[in-house]
Amino acid sequence: MTTLTESPAWLALKNHRQTMVHSSLAQLFEGDPQRFQRLSLRLDGMLLDYSKNWLNDDTLHLLTGLARERGLGTQMHALFGGGRINNTENRAVLHTALRGERATLVDGVDVMPEVRATLERMQLFSSGIRDGSISAQGGSRYSDVVHIGIGGSHLGPMLATHALSPYADGGPRVHFVSNIDMAALQRTLAPLNPATTLVIVVSKTFTTSETLANARSVREWLSNAIGKDAVLQLVAVTANPQRAAEFGVSEDRIFPFWDWVGGRYSLWSAVGLPIALAIGMDGFRDMLRGAHAMDRHFHDAPFEKNMPVVLALLGIWYNNFFDAASHAVLPYDESLSLLPAFLQQLDMESCGKSVRADGSAVDGETGMIIWGAAGTDAQHSFFQLLHQGTRLVPADFIAVCQPHHTAEQHHAILMANFFAQTAALMNGAPLADSPHDRFPGNRPSNSLLLERLTPYSFGQLLALYEHKVFVQSVIWGINAFDQPGVELGKRLASRILPDLHNNAPVSGYDASTNGLIDFYKAHREAPARTERPQ
Amino acid sequence: MTTLTESPAWLALKNHRQTMVHSSLAQLFEGDPQRFQRLSLRLDGMLLDYSKNWLNDDTLHLLTGLARERGLGTQMHALFGGGRINNTENRAVLHTALRGERATLVDGVDVMPEVRATLERMQLFSSGIRDGSISAQGGSRYSDVVHIGIGGSHLGPMLATHALSPYADGGPRVHFVSNIDMAALQRTLAPLNPATTLVIVVSKTFTTSETLANARSVREWLSNAIGKDAVLQLVAVTANPQRAAEFGVSEDRIFPFWDWVGGRYSLWSAVGLPIALAIGMDGFRDMLRGAHAMDRHFHDAPFEKNMPVVLALLGIWYNNFFDAASHAVLPYDESLSLLPAFLQQLDMESCGKSVRADGSAVDGETGMIIWGAAGTDAQHSFFQLLHQGTRLVPADFIAVCQPHHTAEQHHAILMANFFAQTAALMNGAPLADSPHDRFPGNRPSNSLLLERLTPYSFGQLLALYEHKVFVQSVIWGINAFDQPGVELGKRLASRILPDLHNNAPVSGYDASTNGLIDFYKAHREAPARTERPQ
Repeated sequence: MTTLTESPAWLALKNHRQTMVHSSLAQLFEGDPQRFQRLSLRLDGMLLDYSKNWLNDDTLHLLTGLARERGLGTQMHALFGGGRINNTENRAVLHTALRGERATLVDGVDVMPEVRATLERMQLFSSGIRDGSISAQGGSRYSDVVHIGIGGSHLGPMLATHALSPYADGGPRVHFVSNIDMAALQRTLAPLNPATTLVIVVSKTFTTSETLANARSVREWLSNAIGKDAVLQLVAVTANPQRAAEFGVSEDRIFPFWDWVGGRYSLWSAVGLPIALAIGMDGFRDMLRGAHAMDRHFHDAPFEKNMPVVLALLGIWYNNFFDAASHAVLPYDESLSLLPAFLQQLDMESCGKSVRADGSAVDGETGMIIWGAAGTDAQHSFFQLLHQGTRLVPADFIAVCQPHHTAEQHHAILMANFFAQTAALMNGAPLADSPHDRFPGNRPSNSLLLERLTPYSFGQLLALYEHKVFVQSVIWGINAFDQPGVELGKRLASRILPDLHNNAPVSGYDASTNGLIDFYKAHREAPARTERPQ
Repeated sequence: MTTLTESPAWLALKNHRQTMVHSSLAQLFEGDPQRFQRLSLRLDGMLLDYSKNWLNDDTLHLLTGLARERGLGTQMHALFGGGRINNTENRAVLHTALRGERATLVDGVDVMPEVRATLERMQLFSSGIRDGSISAQGGSRYSDVVHIGIGGSHLGPMLATHALSPYADGGPRVHFVSNIDMAALQRTLAPLNPATTLVIVVSKTFTTSETLANARSVREWLSNAIGKDAVLQLVAVTANPQRAAEFGVSEDRIFPFWDWVGGRYSLWSAVGLPIALAIGMDGFRDMLRGAHAMDRHFHDAPFEKNMPVVLALLGIWYNNFFDAASHAVLPYDESLSLLPAFLQQLDMESCGKSVRADGSAVDGETGMIIWGAAGTDAQHSFFQLLHQGTRLVPADFIAVCQPHHTAEQHHAILMANFFAQTAALMNGAPLADSPHDRFPGNRPSNSLLLERLTPYSFGQLLALYEHKVFVQSVIWGINAFDQPGVELGKRLASRILPDLHNNAPVSGYDASTNGLIDFYKAHREAPARTERPQ
């Protein structure tokens, strides 16, 4: 394959860019009354409107041509087929199998029986906890669940539990702790009753520093309250059951996942246990079904009509041809307020690479900065920059037609703002009298409308973005499924940690790091001091 | 004044850039054993280490020269002196007076008596609520406070209340609602007892659409529970007391602020009332004192030794001379987890402008995308991109030497990671065997270490960033204190809202917006449908 930026499709796009910079979004709409119909896609209750983007039929044709040239079809086949496309770790990547139906072979062995067996165990356990038949010591019903994990073991389950809370139907309250900062754990545990709190510890390796430290502290909190039976309230989700057992978790409370489940794709596995506890296993299975529907769409739809492919190619278009450095995610739905943080990990950990899967350097930019916040809040924060700043920030606006409440006026105001913003960004107000009141307009966006936020549509939404990220990685030729960039900091932290156990000045690092450590040592509280803050 | 990018200082910096790109951070440290000592600043218990940046003495000299050339001294004088530097709105900008001590004249009238009188009222009210002498109907102590505001009336008070929660000392629980999405309000109110809930409504104009809709819904929630006495549990903070009175708030429960207090600088005014309720007025006054200490530092210190000036000039350096499009804020402290969202508003609403204060177009880029999340969580999310991605993302790392807890091992792990990350970003691992394990290094960062997170140091921290933003705006020649970019979307939303009150297709907008609205109308729940989610 030729180098990406010297490939025929790329050069054609570069050429085509010169045409497109001379037309505005407003002109594109004027020139084509059918533009919305042609440049929007539907799947079940979901509408993706990508007509407010700097593209025409030629653009789409050239972009999908690029995808073909970079072997997207082959890579998709490998993804769904259990190929070891995570080549640096020599692993298959099978989150689609977690929500799949058909036999999927890894090295000739079908993974589906294990997947189904684990779902069955999750079903029994979650319904037992929810109906009280699995009870805490003394027969009480579990009132609370504390989920301890970080990164991929945290963001997905937390997002899902928050987003789908209208489906809780009396299930236990679920809390999430990730940060090693004890303040986070203390804040969470303070109002809880240890006697009725179930604790889930999630770590693929069961060695993650933050998770294990938090798990030890929670185990101690339980022990102080209920003695040695504390371990009976522990659950583990891990690919390393032996370590979990050594930690004290009983075997029937250890749920497996597998090396072909990446952390940031793990909420579909037993890592999603808190979701099942929060909304019930039927809801969890609906979420899987929704994701599977998006998998089928991604697998089957022609690239031009393929939601994840279109979103990915638009990302490439702005990133590599218009120097957009960031992409905003703007859910107009409080339930999806954690989505930007989830997508930040999904996208940036997958695409924040400078080396291709084959070890050669990438040419041009890869992953963008993914950021955002819920609307309408964000309108009162950073929208000033989106409308009148100097930077191109393509954005996804997401909203839901049917809320779970009956406050019509609230929802109408929310939706009016949702519609108004993409229109205002596109059309602007370039002719206002005062230069301060002028809006250049011509700022692109996607709009995603869901009929209703259900476990099913939520599953679709997440799978949409998972596949978007995958398609971008294929274009850039990078491995989306490893994260070698987190290792150096981890190693160095392990080296620094013992140096913090005394008050002697350090000299083993650069002068800045030495200076910072020494300042800390000189100013940290004496270990014995425990009085309350003033 | 010459155009910014044609000014002598700018051209000199452009020239100087050519030298700097040939030296790495590692080389800069090798060449200067005193680099950390020279390129770090202290104020009270705060250390700012900016030595891990692409600069040497010449850079600093040229950057401060630019600041002088752009009239920073004059602008600072105008800021502190009550000049109408918010020229588009013809307003003075006096958040520094809110935490000041000396007479400050606006049009010849000293604002300080009003400031002090309002602080005194906050003192009486917050201590009354906290000690129970101001009680709810029936004499009960107020257990909860719901603060309703959005944007500047929301982010600051929420951040402060979260960050300073170790100082609550038995005060009421304080909750924040901003989003118009009813789901947010419902989630907040569900566990609360209306009979013991105090409600604060904050809006400068008392016309903010989201805030008033939420206020009406909360007033209804109160009325349904306690009847017409509901209004006695309402408090307003506003520059429009008449409207607050019309809403039903009794006069002695209306706290003023003034047109010279910008929304994003308003937590120092009565908008900070929930902070005073949460931690007590002594704590609130400590916060003011800390901010005032930073004001004095900013006012007095030479530019080369001035924390806000140095941070701002580094921002200009990366933004305008190295094309950095975004800046990450990374607090290694769970208590500061809301800081990135706060700074996002502070910085992007202030600096996201394309027009100078004088109405001419800016030349070059202005405000960056401000984003981030708490460490160590973020290490398991987007740090992959920071270490191995293709983009320059300068970052502020913030940590606290003395936690409010006694879990030493947790804090040691947290701090080891904090120290490790800036070292790893700078030094990298360029020679690893596998290209996937290579880290280019040479990635710049600032480190901010606070001795302890107190109301005082928290006040310092926020004032530091306020002034940083101001300095950047002066360099770019923009007005940091208006936000005309939020008006167009607001106007359009008001126009769209009535169109949502029937089910007829719309045709008054662009084809995409028409199509989105029609999809919504066709798919929204029939108003009568109220069953529970499936």
